[in-house]
Amino acid sequence: MIDFPYIKSITRSTKSKIIMVVADGLGGMANSTNPKSELEIANIPTLDKLSSMSSCGVTTPVLPGITPGSGPGHMALFGYNPIKYLLGRGVLEGLGIGANIGSHDVAARGNFCITDANGIITDRRAGRLTTKESKTLVEILNTIEIPGFEIKVHPVMDYRFVLVLKGPNASANITETDPQVTGTSILESEGLTPSSTGTALAVNLFTRNANLLLSSQKGTANSVILRGFSTIPHLPNFAENYKLKPAAIAGYPMYRGVAGLLGMNILECGQTFTEELDMLKKHYSTGDYDYFFVHYKPADTAGEDGDFDGKVKALENFDSYLKEIVDLKPDVLVVCGDHSTPSLIGSHSWHEVPFLIHSENSQGMGDEYGFSELNCKKNGSIGSIQAEQLMLLVLAHANKLNKFGP
Amino acid sequence: MIDFPYIKSITRSTKSKIIMVVADGLGGMANSTNPKSELEIANIPTLDKLSSMSSCGVTTPVLPGITPGSGPGHMALFGYNPIKYLLGRGVLEGLGIGANIGSHDVAARGNFCITDANGIITDRRAGRLTTKESKTLVEILNTIEIPGFEIKVHPVMDYRFVLVLKGPNASANITETDPQVTGTSILESEGLTPSSTGTALAVNLFTRNANLLLSSQKGTANSVILRGFSTIPHLPNFAENYKLKPAAIAGYPMYRGVAGLLGMNILECGQTFTEELDMLKKHYSTGDYDYFFVHYKPADTAGEDGDFDGKVKALENFDSYLKEIVDLKPDVLVVCGDHSTPSLIGSHSWHEVPFLIHSENSQGMGDEYGFSELNCKKNGSIGSIQAEQLMLLVLAHANKLNKFGP
Repeated sequence: MIDFPYIKSITRSTKSKIIMVVADGLGGMANSTNPKSELEIANIPTLDKLSSMSSCGVTTPVLPGITPGSGPGHMALFGYNPIKYLLGRGVLEGLGIGANIGSHDVAARGNFCITDANGIITDRRAGRLTTKESKTLVEILNTIEIPGFEIKVHPVMDYRFVLVLKGPNASANITETDPQVTGTSILESEGLTPSSTGTALAVNLFTRNANLLLSSQKGTANSVILRGFSTIPHLPNFAENYKLKPAAIAGYPMYRGVAGLLGMNILECGQTFTEELDMLKKHYSTGDYDYFFVHYKPADTAGEDGDFDGKVKALENFDSYLKEIVDLKPDVLVVCGDHSTPSLIGSHSWHEVPFLIHSENSQGMGDEYGFSELNCKKNGSIGSIQAEQLMLLVLAHANKLNKFGP
Repeated sequence: MIDFPYIKSITRSTKSKIIMVVADGLGGMANSTNPKSELEIANIPTLDKLSSMSSCGVTTPVLPGITPGSGPGHMALFGYNPIKYLLGRGVLEGLGIGANIGSHDVAARGNFCITDANGIITDRRAGRLTTKESKTLVEILNTIEIPGFEIKVHPVMDYRFVLVLKGPNASANITETDPQVTGTSILESEGLTPSSTGTALAVNLFTRNANLLLSSQKGTANSVILRGFSTIPHLPNFAENYKLKPAAIAGYPMYRGVAGLLGMNILECGQTFTEELDMLKKHYSTGDYDYFFVHYKPADTAGEDGDFDGKVKALENFDSYLKEIVDLKPDVLVVCGDHSTPSLIGSHSWHEVPFLIHSENSQGMGDEYGFSELNCKKNGSIGSIQAEQLMLLVLAHANKLNKFGP
C-alpha cells in the first residue's frame, strides 16, 4: 500500500463505482524520424472526448529512467509501492500460468538444459525443445519425491517450467542453481540462513533426480537449472484498505494472479477483450462490486513487436471498445497504463504513461487537446505523479476519502 | 521539519525580511459547468502584478488526492512533514480555543451528550445545547478532582469542550469513550500500554463523576463522551532550524496555536484582517522579527459555504489588503495557501494550491498570465512542488541558505 500510514483511516465506502481500465503498454514515444507517438497518430475519438472532460496526467511507474516489468507496473497502479512490494520472479512466473502458490510456498523459474559428460552446461535452453516435449518432461519431474517437501512442477512454454516447493520449512532464502552462463557446472544451492539449508538440500536432490530421470530419456534435455526462488510477500489487502469490493477482469493469468494476491475477486474469462467486456457488463450492475480492474493487452503486444502501425491499430480498437464501457456510465472511469511500450524501442520502457480520470469532480483539458503522452503531462489538470499515487486520486474523484488530520 | 537532515547546517541569519501570507483555502477549481475558478474570475490586480514578477508554482499539501485538515495544511507550509508531525484532534481543538496545553499534557475533544435510564446514548450532541449552557456545565466539570491528575475543562462551542489532563503519568495511549454512534453505552477507556492504565482509569472516573454531577442538574445533557486523546508531538524548533526570528499574526486561535508549538512568537490581535495588518505594520520595522506568518481566513470560509461569489469577493478583498503589505517592501513576500477550498465542492480539497514568491531573486511569469491555479502550475517558474518544500524555496529567495555540501 502507498507509504501513507493513515490510508485505512480515511477511506470510506460509498455507492459510487469505479472502472479502472489498464491498457498494457499504453504509452509510446516519438523521435526525430517519427515525430508523433502512436497515441498522437491513432484515431481515438472516445479517448479524446473523455480527456477533454477528465482530470489528466502522466504516471511514473517506479522512478524516472526505471523500466518496470509487468509486476511493478501493476502493483504501482493499485497503490502499492512497487519497490517495497516487489514480487519474485518465481512467484510472478507461477502466477502467469495460474499455478497454485500458497502463502508459504517457494516458487522458482526452471529451464530444461543440456550438460555434457562432465556436467558442464552446453545449452541453457535445451535447444529447440517444444512446449509439447517440455510437458512430457514436466510429467517425469513430477514423479520426484523429496522427504519433507511436496514438489509440483508446472510447464510454461518451450524450455521453461515453474517449480513450486511446499513444506513447513520451505524457504526462498537460498542460492540459485542456474549459473546464467554456459561452460560451467550447475551450481549447488546453498541456504543463506540456518533454517533454509533444508530447502537448499531439497533443491539439490531435485536437480540430481531430474538429471538421472532426464538422462535416461535420451531426449534433448538432460538436466534442469533453477532461479528466482521466491515466496509471496505480505501484501496489505486492497479491499480492506480502500474499503472497496474489487473485481479483476483480465484474460491473461499473470494479471489475474497479481490482482488475486491483493485480495481482488477474480472474474474468470477468456483472453480476448470482448470476453472481458462481456464479463464487465454482466457484473457491473449487480452491486457485488464497486471497483473493476479491466486489463487490455494488445497495445503492449504490438509495442513489444516494434510494430508501430500495429500499436496504432491496437489503440484504435481499444478506443472503440471503450465506448461500450462509457455507456455503463461508471461514476469514475480511469484509463491508465502499467508502463509504456514504445514501438520505436520494441520493449517496456521507463517513459511516463498518460492517464485520465473521468468523473463529476474532474477538471478536463478542454477540446483543444487530444489524449496523448505530451498533452496529459503538459495540459492535464494533474500533470506528473507517481503511479503509486494514482489510486489516491481515483478514490478522491470517487468521493471515497475523508479529510486527513484535524 | 522537512526530511533534509542538513537544514540547520545551511541556514544563515541575514538582514532580509520575509512576510508569508497564508490565504486559507486559497485554491479553487473549475468544472465543465463552471469553466473558471474563483481566482480566474476574481479581479485581483495586485496578485496579477505580483505574479508577473514572482516565482510561481503550486503546492501539494500532503499527497495527490489527500485532503488535509488545517493542521497538516499549515504544518506543511512551515516545512514540517504533515504526516510525520500530525497533530492530534484533542491538541488541535485545544489550540483552537487558546487552551494552555503543556508538553506532557493530554488533550481530548469532549461532547456533552444524553443517555437514557440504561446508560444508552440517545444523542451524541445533547440536543441544541447552547454555548452559554455549555459554559455553565463546564464550570461544573471543573469541580471534578481525580487523584494524581489535574483536570482542566475548556468550553468550545455548542455541545463541545476540551479536556486537558495534567499529571506526571498522563498518557494519550488510551482508547476513546465516544462510541461515535448512538444506541450504545459510553465506552470504558482502556490503557493501551501498562503505563497508560492510570490515565484510562482517571478518564473513566471523570466520566462517572461528570455523569453524576450533570444528572443532578436536570438539564439537557447528562453525560460526556471523549475522543482524540493526544499530546503535543516533539516538534523541531522553527526559529532555531531556519535561524529566523519568527512572528505569527493570526486572528483565529488555532493558527496561533500551531505557530506557537513550532516556536514562533505570537503577536496577539483581533480576528479581522485589518487588525492583523495593523499588528504587522506595527512590528515590521522594529527589527524584532525577520519572518512574519500572516493568516487570512475569509477565502476558506466562503469556500466551505459553497459560496462561489463570496469566495471571489473574499479573494478580491484579500487583493486590496495585499497592496498594503507590498507597500512595506518586504525583501521576500510569499502568498500561499494551506489547502484548496473550492466553492464547487464546499469543503477542503486535495487540489494543488497556487503560490508566489516575490523577491529580487524571483523569475516572474510575465504580464500575459494572471495569478491562478492553472497559470502557477503551467507557467510558473517553479511549477508543482510538495508544500513541505516551500520554505526551502522561500529561504533560498531570501538568500538565507548556504551551499549544501562541499
